[in-house]
Amino acid sequence: MAQLYLIRHGIAAERTEYTNDVDRPLTQIGREKTTKVAQRLKAIGVNFEVILTSPLVRARQTAEIFQQVGLSNIVEVFQPLAPGGDIQTWVNWWLNSPYNTENSHLALVGHQPDLGNWTEILVWGNSQDKLIVKKAGIIGVTLPENTKPIGGSELFLLTAPKWFIKS
Amino acid sequence: MAQLYLIRHGIAAERTEYTNDVDRPLTQIGREKTTKVAQRLKAIGVNFEVILTSPLVRARQTAEIFQQVGLSNIVEVFQPLAPGGDIQTWVNWWLNSPYNTENSHLALVGHQPDLGNWTEILVWGNSQDKLIVKKAGIIGVTLPENTKPIGGSELFLLTAPKWFIKS
Repeated sequence: MAQLYLIRHGIAAERTEYTNDVDRPLTQIGREKTTKVAQRLKAIGVNFEVILTSPLVRARQTAEIFQQVGLSNIVEVFQPLAPGGDIQTWVNWWLNSPYNTENSHLALVGHQPDLGNWTEILVWGNSQDKLIVKKAGIIGVTLPENTKPIGGSELFLLTAPKWFIKS
Repeated sequence: MAQLYLIRHGIAAERTEYTNDVDRPLTQIGREKTTKVAQRLKAIGVNFEVILTSPLVRARQTAEIFQQVGLSNIVEVFQPLAPGGDIQTWVNWWLNSPYNTENSHLALVGHQPDLGNWTEILVWGNSQDKLIVKKAGIIGVTLPENTKPIGGSELFLLTAPKWFIKS
């Protein structure tokens, strides 16, 4: 069964410091905490065939940290992961993806509330915005085989860095 | 906001070894893994005003380990946490409980699929059996203030021991 990890970007610079929200980078603390999360995933033995990331700087930097730690060789910008993106676009990508194999692991790096909403749609078929997803937090979903993922997935992980790394 | 932790009992002896399912104790590995989970919660700073446990031996032993580690001074057997128990009984207890205060933390120790179903009912109002809850796994839910918890709660944690402890 394929496993999908939805990862929220780390702590980023304040909006007041940047004219364009899309340009906000991770802070030093954001980089450090994100690195610890990535290292812990690596230590547990997780490996991603591919990491798709939102085009925004704070998400791309998060995905790059995951790549640098050795969690994946491939990072691709995926436009629908930008804030407000449509999950159906990702589902269409997945159903035709070369990564859609029995035991594949893949990661999406993006934003709230979208990642929580996408998760609820995958698992329960609709979203009520009921998942609390912290920065550098991780959601884990198993995708069904031989059927469409919306409403057919299951939730196996939801964690903030607080629970996941030893700070 | 009050926080409710739903904790599944640890790994227990096989059904074939015991005439009555209710008597199955934790195995040695089950005790060790459960202790590590409890110690990790303690190290993070969690403390429960009360732990309610299913009357079954494997759940009571799990709750006792949590108490021994110092996570709570009070463990009470709560009959509706036995397999197939009705969440409404717990809701009624909670709404009239002295523990129902603004920032209280409490834990329920019980069984699958009930704990996952109770969580879905608290958060989304109904259950589709979509949460994967491993033995000694933890679910974390925030309960709403001044309103009934069913359909008004939020999910902030779902983790198997694999993600939570360093084995």
